[in-house]
Amino acid sequence: MKALVYNGPFDLTLKDLPKPVPSPGEVVIKIQAASICGSDVTGYKGKSNMRIAPLVMGHEFSGIVTEISEDVNKDKIGARVAVVPNLYCGKCINCLEGNINLCDFRKIVGTTMAVGGYNGAMAEYVAVRLEALLYLPDSVSFHEAALLEPFAVALHAVKKAGDLKNKSALIVGAGPIGLLVLKCLKYLGAISVIVTDLVDNRLELASKLGADKVINTAKENASEAIKSMTNSIGVDIALDAVGISASINQCIDSVRNNGKIILIGMAAQHLDFEFKQVVCREIQMFGSYTYTTEMQECLDILNSGQVNLNDLITGIFPIEEGPAIFASLAEGNSEDIKVILTM
Amino acid sequence: MKALVYNGPFDLTLKDLPKPVPSPGEVVIKIQAASICGSDVTGYKGKSNMRIAPLVMGHEFSGIVTEISEDVNKDKIGARVAVVPNLYCGKCINCLEGNINLCDFRKIVGTTMAVGGYNGAMAEYVAVRLEALLYLPDSVSFHEAALLEPFAVALHAVKKAGDLKNKSALIVGAGPIGLLVLKCLKYLGAISVIVTDLVDNRLELASKLGADKVINTAKENASEAIKSMTNSIGVDIALDAVGISASINQCIDSVRNNGKIILIGMAAQHLDFEFKQVVCREIQMFGSYTYTTEMQECLDILNSGQVNLNDLITGIFPIEEGPAIFASLAEGNSEDIKVILTM
Repeated sequence: MKALVYNGPFDLTLKDLPKPVPSPGEVVIKIQAASICGSDVTGYKGKSNMRIAPLVMGHEFSGIVTEISEDVNKDKIGARVAVVPNLYCGKCINCLEGNINLCDFRKIVGTTMAVGGYNGAMAEYVAVRLEALLYLPDSVSFHEAALLEPFAVALHAVKKAGDLKNKSALIVGAGPIGLLVLKCLKYLGAISVIVTDLVDNRLELASKLGADKVINTAKENASEAIKSMTNSIGVDIALDAVGISASINQCIDSVRNNGKIILIGMAAQHLDFEFKQVVCREIQMFGSYTYTTEMQECLDILNSGQVNLNDLITGIFPIEEGPAIFASLAEGNSEDIKVILTM
Repeated sequence: MKALVYNGPFDLTLKDLPKPVPSPGEVVIKIQAASICGSDVTGYKGKSNMRIAPLVMGHEFSGIVTEISEDVNKDKIGARVAVVPNLYCGKCINCLEGNINLCDFRKIVGTTMAVGGYNGAMAEYVAVRLEALLYLPDSVSFHEAALLEPFAVALHAVKKAGDLKNKSALIVGAGPIGLLVLKCLKYLGAISVIVTDLVDNRLELASKLGADKVINTAKENASEAIKSMTNSIGVDIALDAVGISASINQCIDSVRNNGKIILIGMAAQHLDFEFKQVVCREIQMFGSYTYTTEMQECLDILNSGQVNLNDLITGIFPIEEGPAIFASLAEGNSEDIKVILTM
């Protein structure tokens, strides 16, 4: 089968790999859409310990079940599915408490974890366990279904803020996750959402998607603008979809006393942050990592028609163009939000 | 009246000041005990913007009501009292939501705030509003009552961790606040408390006060010890009573996935912290600043006899010795925990 193989930093090639064979309890999926995540691009650049070559990347995807192991019911063949790529152990203390996203023994499709690598969906076929499948209603396209995974990342983060009705929020970073956070905040009833970024075209998209105010922090002092918009009180919730000192300090500066900051981005290894404000103003900070049950919830939301993800898909290309697309994304000049590969 | 006046960095002198006169709604208290806070010593060294000379410091204190303004009921005269030094406005959004500790317009007895300075209790008399009084039962001594304020700081912090029954905890820093946090954790049912510090005599006191394990981090790798004690899971709750990069990173290293870190100490201005762990392990961090209702709760606990504060009082001296005591504390070699001045 065709597969996009990561051979090492800046080295991605289309290769012919053996088609996966389903182990007991597994199915094989013919991939229809695999979306490129920012973490894949970081991996391509050789800057992630979660992408160790050789590896087929791709953890945001959808497809059709074409083969099953003997112990799987035959009615699964032909099912349109998305996949929860977190293959948690189900037995450790984190899993038993429902925090399957924090499982110390998890594999993640398309990544390299402590327990080993798992070839992903930037290929014609992938094998996964039956329990990882989400069955798609006809109303949800394969393309949108490929974005269920980052949508779930955003929903999981936003849910940590608690009840959002009539709450004001700041999103720092209008990349794919920041924009999906925006959709979640609006869906859950936030009354006012401010979005900051350094790139105008991303902020324009944020405006189109319903942001009440966008601020290019390269051109405008966001802290002052937010103070004047919030009667000097600050926003109720700030979500950091970047993860560098400047972004988290923007959250700290902008959130109200006793307010909540949700940390999603992880661009920096360490942070120099405005610590005294966190203590003196009793700010609450919550790390948010991937999701637990949210991919199914996101599928239900998509199916309800209340949220649409198509407006984030800025490119759809055949897998053969993968190497050129990764090279372009790694340069950092791309205006793309979400790019989908088809097989 | 005699008063210990802070004139500037390392310059504290006993002076004769006019005795305060009660304004409407106020009482004058004859001070019986004023305890020295670490923040007073930081102020003495000229390193706090909350101690601007000239100022009489002292916000941890107790005494007897000796004078009242005309509108105060005469039965208050002679009352044995402690004082809530946070003179919050009662009208701002923080106060209206019950977060009187975050009031932007508060004065604090014995400190300099944005709205001005307020002479404190390292003097023979201080004037405060009637609502700031806590009436002492006979069972509570003036000395213990002077420690109600830092006791409340500790209780407020510990309450942020939620239900403590059967929870394990780490306290980083065995100074007065760390030791009071230890008392609160034990009182509220924590099953196992580890305390770290760099100073052996403080750790010995922590052991006497009920710590299940003490670790001198100058001599032993605390992270490894805590991992082996917690089956590699980590403690449920970590409380930082220091506030430097090393202390908060110790908390991050030691707390379990999805665990809680309570930030109390503020020794550093900025922190370089292990940010990715906070995100990837979904750690929750809560800034904790002073207290709201906890001084009354602490008084009730003291009155119940379930907690005793006398074992933290390592020195009681007349106010005349104040300048020498501050000079000694500022040198950093003192083995004292809490020192009380009497008038």
